[in-house]
Amino acid sequence: MHDPLPNVPQLLGILAVVLAAARLLGAAIAKIGQPAVLGELIAGVLLGSSVFGIVDPLDGVLHTFAELGVVILLFEIGLETDLTQLLRAGIDSIAVAIAGVVLPFAAGYFVCRFMGLSNTVAIFSGAALTATSVGITARVLNDLGRLKELESQIIIGAAVIDDILGLVILTIVGGMAKGDAITAWRVVSVTALAFGFLIGTILIGSLVVPWLMRLVSRVRVPGFVPTLGLLLAFGLAWGADAAGSAAIIGAFAAGLLLRPTPYVDEIEKGIAPLGHFFIPIFFVVVGASVDLHVFAPRPENFATLRLGGLLVVVAVLGKFLAGYAPFWFRGRKAIIGVGMIPRGEVGLIFAQMGLAAHVFDKAEFSAMTLMVMVTTFIAPPLLRLLFPPKETDGEEPDRNQSEIEI
Amino acid sequence: MHDPLPNVPQLLGILAVVLAAARLLGAAIAKIGQPAVLGELIAGVLLGSSVFGIVDPLDGVLHTFAELGVVILLFEIGLETDLTQLLRAGIDSIAVAIAGVVLPFAAGYFVCRFMGLSNTVAIFSGAALTATSVGITARVLNDLGRLKELESQIIIGAAVIDDILGLVILTIVGGMAKGDAITAWRVVSVTALAFGFLIGTILIGSLVVPWLMRLVSRVRVPGFVPTLGLLLAFGLAWGADAAGSAAIIGAFAAGLLLRPTPYVDEIEKGIAPLGHFFIPIFFVVVGASVDLHVFAPRPENFATLRLGGLLVVVAVLGKFLAGYAPFWFRGRKAIIGVGMIPRGEVGLIFAQMGLAAHVFDKAEFSAMTLMVMVTTFIAPPLLRLLFPPKETDGEEPDRNQSEIEI
Repeated sequence: MHDPLPNVPQLLGILAVVLAAARLLGAAIAKIGQPAVLGELIAGVLLGSSVFGIVDPLDGVLHTFAELGVVILLFEIGLETDLTQLLRAGIDSIAVAIAGVVLPFAAGYFVCRFMGLSNTVAIFSGAALTATSVGITARVLNDLGRLKELESQIIIGAAVIDDILGLVILTIVGGMAKGDAITAWRVVSVTALAFGFLIGTILIGSLVVPWLMRLVSRVRVPGFVPTLGLLLAFGLAWGADAAGSAAIIGAFAAGLLLRPTPYVDEIEKGIAPLGHFFIPIFFVVVGASVDLHVFAPRPENFATLRLGGLLVVVAVLGKFLAGYAPFWFRGRKAIIGVGMIPRGEVGLIFAQMGLAAHVFDKAEFSAMTLMVMVTTFIAPPLLRLLFPPKETDGEEPDRNQSEIEI
Repeated sequence: MHDPLPNVPQLLGILAVVLAAARLLGAAIAKIGQPAVLGELIAGVLLGSSVFGIVDPLDGVLHTFAELGVVILLFEIGLETDLTQLLRAGIDSIAVAIAGVVLPFAAGYFVCRFMGLSNTVAIFSGAALTATSVGITARVLNDLGRLKELESQIIIGAAVIDDILGLVILTIVGGMAKGDAITAWRVVSVTALAFGFLIGTILIGSLVVPWLMRLVSRVRVPGFVPTLGLLLAFGLAWGADAAGSAAIIGAFAAGLLLRPTPYVDEIEKGIAPLGHFFIPIFFVVVGASVDLHVFAPRPENFATLRLGGLLVVVAVLGKFLAGYAPFWFRGRKAIIGVGMIPRGEVGLIFAQMGLAAHVFDKAEFSAMTLMVMVTTFIAPPLLRLLFPPKETDGEEPDRNQSEIEI
């Protein structure tokens, strides 16, 4: 009836190793001026099957902890994001998101066809290239203390829209793999549901949440207000998923809605230790999904490396150029383009779905993970280069950096 | 190769419901002057299979969260416990623990034999009666703001010893169920390992931990020191289990060792939000293990109710009288006896092991859970009656109560 219960003490040992490695490598990387998240990703690669084999990204409990981590991260990013500013950057974000889906998809499709691959493989590859890991970019911008800059707001907005578009593509391509017919009606309804949830939640939530928080926060128990915030984040994450949108979008919406309430500081302080615990697990698990063996320059890897290398080029160029889509924007478009590059866990989900559906063979799957890996690992240092960490001056201490830093 | 990954969004929904129910019922129960943990247990009963069926205590991920909760709880209790004071109460604790194992075991054995049950069933029942839930008692004492009183220290000490003795009994009785021979050597080695880990860890840790913390805490990253504390707790919990002791004993030892360091306040503050999150899940899962159907006054339940009723009587009397074992102690022995009554999750583990080993039939298993349930639920209000919540006067604000309260 039930699977055997997990061996919890062993998991505690693994968690201790994961947290120790993530924090120490994160601190070491931060010391040399790079975003701490890079250290956590490297910790994951070391703990994954490529090297020590301690972290299995397909373990159910670790997977759950990692997912909770990215939900809490997006909740924290939402708490730091001003809805008005996000909307003001709205048109720019939409332009970046759409260009960032169309360009990599088209380029990826043609590269695969050019390499002689089938139509289905080309569509799946193109779809995997459209992803943007909002988690990784947001963490990097936060590590750099730059989350509130206009460029960052455009990136976050575009990455969120991209995440929803990615879901739409995932649903349609996933259906295609199962042999479903693609009808215009299906595309429209999936898209409407995915975006409708976010818009509806923000419209209704703006009215209900402040009133609800006032009502329930009368219960004066220690830690009650942060728990309420977490409840809203988890509830909306669940609701977003149930409505056909993504869980992290719901958590982000919860943060946006709580931001204008008087409880935002109390919630941020109460959630931070949960973030310190769960968020590194997410990045370690993403890192642990990397299989370094595909890099080995052996003859059997050449096809993988050739396809992977081409995909890396179009993946980087496609998103980078998308940063220039809002041609009217006067800020630094290169930063936006670079911020959209990392595919992270979203790209891996596409790659794994393609493998599970027998669309990708082992070599094509490895080429995909190579593309995901490279885009994920080059984005943090590139972003750091274009967007140096903000100096904390005495007058306005950089609240973000110290509060969400992991 | 792998089980399918858990449905995380659905789990987020369940977690939201669990946290909401636990916090609201906890606050409501606290409002009428009872320990908040009682509200969380009731929330568990309501969410469990008896009523709403939302929480399945055998779900792997929820089980893991619950176990993490009790590990964090015991870590927090350790952080609040002064080793010197614990040792000063040592002889009293040992007397209470031994009497609290011998009396309920003997009484339970004879009740079962008197009811015509087999020798094996009687031994298992006696063993299940020896358990004490250190988690429930410690939470109640903490809810009442009484954790630092001498009586409380004796209870905590005795409950910790009891937990180790319980493990020894569990190992031996568990071996018996598998048909292993019980040799004196086996009993001695299991006992020595279980106690040796705690004593060895405290001896070595007292020398190593302050030095280690000083060394590593030079890394100034936000939230690093609490993470270090958590690492020690998880590491020792894993080590304790690997050495044949219990994970929660390792976590408790980690707290004891960190208590005299200058980082104790920072660690307590950083861990508290994790406790707010994980600890209620533990009590909800314990509550959800309760099957209210055995209470229904139907003919097929009469044998269960009769056996269960008798077991409740000897369970309560056995532990209550154990409180009087340190006859030289001048404090309130009744409080100690009542504090030892709740069997909680430890009793359930014995009962479930007996069922899994086909020692207990369904009726006997239900009688056991009845005993566990009643002792778990009567202890908090009884303790509250004998040990009224401490008034917080302005001079010494009750730090415990506000810091660990859930």
